[in-house]
Amino acid sequence: MTERYAAVDVIVAKRDRRELTDDQIDWVVDAYTRGVVADEQMSSLAMAILLNGMNRREISRWTGAMIASGERMSFPGLGRPTVDKHSTGGVGDKITLPLAPLVAACGAAVPQLSGRGLGHTGGTLDKLESIPGWRALLSNDEMLGVLRDVGAVICAAGDGLAPADKKLYALRDVTGTVEAIPLIASSIMSKKIAEGASALVLDVKTGSGAFMKDPALARELASTMVQLGDDAGVHTTALITAMDVPLGRTAGNAIEVEESLEILAGGGPADVRELTLTLARVMLESVGIDGTDPADALDDGRAMDAWKAMIRAQGGDPEAALPVAAESHEVRAVRSGFVTRLDAYGVGVAAWRLGAGRARKEDAVQAGAGVRWHVGQGDRVEAGQLLATLYTDTPERFPAAMADLANAIVVGEAADIVERLPLVIDRVGR
Amino acid sequence: MTERYAAVDVIVAKRDRRELTDDQIDWVVDAYTRGVVADEQMSSLAMAILLNGMNRREISRWTGAMIASGERMSFPGLGRPTVDKHSTGGVGDKITLPLAPLVAACGAAVPQLSGRGLGHTGGTLDKLESIPGWRALLSNDEMLGVLRDVGAVICAAGDGLAPADKKLYALRDVTGTVEAIPLIASSIMSKKIAEGASALVLDVKTGSGAFMKDPALARELASTMVQLGDDAGVHTTALITAMDVPLGRTAGNAIEVEESLEILAGGGPADVRELTLTLARVMLESVGIDGTDPADALDDGRAMDAWKAMIRAQGGDPEAALPVAAESHEVRAVRSGFVTRLDAYGVGVAAWRLGAGRARKEDAVQAGAGVRWHVGQGDRVEAGQLLATLYTDTPERFPAAMADLANAIVVGEAADIVERLPLVIDRVGR
Repeated sequence: MTERYAAVDVIVAKRDRRELTDDQIDWVVDAYTRGVVADEQMSSLAMAILLNGMNRREISRWTGAMIASGERMSFPGLGRPTVDKHSTGGVGDKITLPLAPLVAACGAAVPQLSGRGLGHTGGTLDKLESIPGWRALLSNDEMLGVLRDVGAVICAAGDGLAPADKKLYALRDVTGTVEAIPLIASSIMSKKIAEGASALVLDVKTGSGAFMKDPALARELASTMVQLGDDAGVHTTALITAMDVPLGRTAGNAIEVEESLEILAGGGPADVRELTLTLARVMLESVGIDGTDPADALDDGRAMDAWKAMIRAQGGDPEAALPVAAESHEVRAVRSGFVTRLDAYGVGVAAWRLGAGRARKEDAVQAGAGVRWHVGQGDRVEAGQLLATLYTDTPERFPAAMADLANAIVVGEAADIVERLPLVIDRVGR
Repeated sequence: MTERYAAVDVIVAKRDRRELTDDQIDWVVDAYTRGVVADEQMSSLAMAILLNGMNRREISRWTGAMIASGERMSFPGLGRPTVDKHSTGGVGDKITLPLAPLVAACGAAVPQLSGRGLGHTGGTLDKLESIPGWRALLSNDEMLGVLRDVGAVICAAGDGLAPADKKLYALRDVTGTVEAIPLIASSIMSKKIAEGASALVLDVKTGSGAFMKDPALARELASTMVQLGDDAGVHTTALITAMDVPLGRTAGNAIEVEESLEILAGGGPADVRELTLTLARVMLESVGIDGTDPADALDDGRAMDAWKAMIRAQGGDPEAALPVAAESHEVRAVRSGFVTRLDAYGVGVAAWRLGAGRARKEDAVQAGAGVRWHVGQGDRVEAGQLLATLYTDTPERFPAAMADLANAIVVGEAADIVERLPLVIDRVGR
């Protein structure tokens, strides 16, 4: 087969700050998926894109080309509108767990394809897999069945969705080209658009525990993704939310499921409840469902019922006891004062080290591992008061995690309390 | 073996416009040579270097690391100083052929490691290989023997010199990262410094037929290479010379040897003689040989004697007839007027198409192929006058080469004669 372009010409065009044509973009993404464009060529193109940028048309076309590399799902005959949520990832971010059944209980269908964690942020599937019997891998038919019966499904994205993105993501990871907004935005949106939901709500996190630590970059990413959604005909809204402090009181797997159950029972930490309800309202609004207050669905048990049905439909036992780590360790305040700082990144790294996350894709996670913190930023504490509890099956990891935590939970003077970001910082899109 | 760095951290440092440390540079070049840094990582680093640059210290260290990847030659006991010349490549640039024996005849030793042609510029070894029996591949001992006996040797660089450069050059070629001055300069200079000559004269060409078409970039490349030479203790001078029009009257292989013999016999085209003598004077000056006028050595036969001895020492027969192409084609002026333009690039492409050059490294070249032009830029010509003769063993290539030449040799009005660059534009270094 004769190729329409030479890879080096496409690379040189972007290197020399020229716009790539639609046809060049279609070709290079397709040829990379076919293996005609080599890894070393795509990585130098990715670096040129990172440093020289792409405009809206180029990013939109790139996203379309990645979608076209695989299958595109659709959910006909559900009788209710579909809406999906995506978070850019944070520490203690278990929001998807209560949110999907909650929005389903309010009348929308939520086909939630999720990922596993890598690095200091946890993965939704890793958390759910701590529930005995629960299966992340569903066939397309199974997924559609759960969605039809329950209104919500949370499962792994199949290999058929945007395979170009899968290949490119792995390459970017080892070539220093992850941090390119056009590539991040097209990676996320190609998968989300291919999933076929009619509306999408993005939770773009910023702060120490987020991928986008700089709020200005978070806003740029949010705007880019909203444009991509609009260009593809998917009603897209983004919230920019705080990830300076971790969400709720737990970071791990089973312990985050436990906290999600508190939310579904109408309780739980205030920030997790507030963010869950805010996202639920935007999701419902974006598919035109009004007149239902999602807070009622949390308080009257409808969201919990949807959760149980969803877990059962995927083989899980919602009544089974959750796994508990073999060992725990308590961290106490060595002086009286105030929690001047509760740093999301440090807490996330500690949880990751304890075994809640993985260093490499092929690693397994520990269901019971993680960190539970008992204080919030700004709280008054007394010497000897319990600050945090660490959980792991591999206690040799305690010392390193304790060192991370010593920098992440700081007790000092009232005057030194770090100011927190507002939970919801901004909204982008309709 | 535990690695001192992760490749991605080195890439990210350069991507984010930080300087690379000496140790990072040593590691990444060595680890790439060992295969620990993958091609896709080195190509994204190369693109970051191309777009974000390197400072003098970084380029110097990078060059040193490439030299350290292989062997470093030395020429003890010659009893005379060694000096080497490198041209960045041009059309009709056969200067090395008369220059090396000329400088040897004047008292210096010239260990000239040369390359083959790729693309529209010819290669010194390809030209010399048109001489029956001549061998480009010598062992280090053979090379030293020829140098000792004759004072000049022109041969292929062995695989042992700067293997990191060899690997990186092949990668840059397919990843759009050739045009980075730090990488070009370090590629040339790592090989030249590893060759071990005590002085080096660089002929940096600019104009349509040169790699550096922009004189400002040619000057930047020249300055960078002179600095690298100085940093490595090699007395380095660069001349920036014209490559807007091709050199002499021939572009090919055997036909360039023939023109070189005219120069060695004291005749030949004025520009080739002038550039040969200018470079010879700078080379002799740089090793402190004075009192010898190289023009005398051309005119009294000493340079020709050195040439014959050099060719014989490498198995060639300097008296043998040179190969002649199977077919030739004459191009004549269709109108009277002036040669307004004689474009080096167009002539080079025509010669390449006729078989004098290669499209891929593994291609063979035709000894007899090429272009001879019979007019100079600005000459008055009459309708029907012979402008050029094309030579090839594969006459099916004539039409394409004729089309190239029609744009490269233009006959028009006197007022439209394109102004030529001066033959020697500038000098950089001592």
